[in-house]
Amino acid sequence: MTSASGQQGSFITFEGIDGSGKSTQVHRLADHLRARGHDVVITREPGGSPGAEEIRALVLQGDPDRWSAETEILLFTAARRDHMERLIGPALAAGKTVICDRFADSTRMYQGLSRGDLRAVVDQLHSLMIGREPDLTVLIDMDPATGLERALARQTADERFEAFGAGLQQAMRAGFLALAEEFRDRFRVVDGGRDIDTVAADIAAIADNALA
Amino acid sequence: MTSASGQQGSFITFEGIDGSGKSTQVHRLADHLRARGHDVVITREPGGSPGAEEIRALVLQGDPDRWSAETEILLFTAARRDHMERLIGPALAAGKTVICDRFADSTRMYQGLSRGDLRAVVDQLHSLMIGREPDLTVLIDMDPATGLERALARQTADERFEAFGAGLQQAMRAGFLALAEEFRDRFRVVDGGRDIDTVAADIAAIADNALA
Repeated sequence: MTSASGQQGSFITFEGIDGSGKSTQVHRLADHLRARGHDVVITREPGGSPGAEEIRALVLQGDPDRWSAETEILLFTAARRDHMERLIGPALAAGKTVICDRFADSTRMYQGLSRGDLRAVVDQLHSLMIGREPDLTVLIDMDPATGLERALARQTADERFEAFGAGLQQAMRAGFLALAEEFRDRFRVVDGGRDIDTVAADIAAIADNALA
Repeated sequence: MTSASGQQGSFITFEGIDGSGKSTQVHRLADHLRARGHDVVITREPGGSPGAEEIRALVLQGDPDRWSAETEILLFTAARRDHMERLIGPALAAGKTVICDRFADSTRMYQGLSRGDLRAVVDQLHSLMIGREPDLTVLIDMDPATGLERALARQTADERFEAFGAGLQQAMRAGFLALAEEFRDRFRVVDGGRDIDTVAADIAAIADNALA
């Protein structure tokens, strides 16, 4: 679907653990789609619009325990609502292809991991205040050890990453794979352990197929 | 119910338009209940806990149009959740009487006034993330012209108040009275146009009866 078609654009999200190469592959896919005539908008969560970035800062600054999980979910949902209204929604309505680095599936995975009963809260809030799911979600699957190695090599491993530890990284990987099973209509799992060009070619083929 | 009883305390809220004397009457009722042996906590919304105050500041600062009504409702619900978790809930659990100046009914009234379809969103979010309603809600009803006169006399009429105008003030009064009809089990309407001592005596009798 092209930007000149007058149709609603496509909404593509990327998910995966830190170090899985999401950011690189988001840009590779944007280049690919632009070469094919798409008008592409790249964005990311948490944040993505000025209001959402302010809410994100409020959540992340200060003592990590100062918000309960429920309050945090409400704040992230407020940020996502703003992001949808101000950036993603208008871009899709203008026929653009939106590629978003992390979206609601990251919230589902993280909150579900921290407390199982939160998954239902996340889903109910999403259904009430966001509604829209992506047309395509690319999960870049990777062994956490490989992801950590890559992140350390790039010196992008932040404190949170190191604090997570190997066990939690494995749990996050498993959490994403479970979501890919649950939402198999829109999820595509890509092996991110291979070289960048091979992964990019896989994702390009998946996107071409999904947007055809 | 006394603070030493080990029972859950009572949750009393005050509603009414600006200038109706809520703040004065909140303190008068607290004095009355303390004299009868209650351990009373006074609080207010929006805000009320440190986290909720920060969210409140985020909502109120800057361009009034920078948040959509839906995002604003999510942010106020996040603030209310924090206020419930950190202050109101623990105080009630400790057997204290909590008196709160404005609560969810203010959100219902304001948002319902700005767009009718928002009332359902407010109610669904309240039911999902807050749950609890007050045991007693005192609505101080007053002719907006009287309220404005009083506020101007105290020099507390802020810009928002003046910007509202007489027509909107009348609509807010009607909105609160409609809520009092809808939730008649917990609402008590008090004529706030009389002198402070008379109003305070009425509210004290209502509270004594409700907490008996």
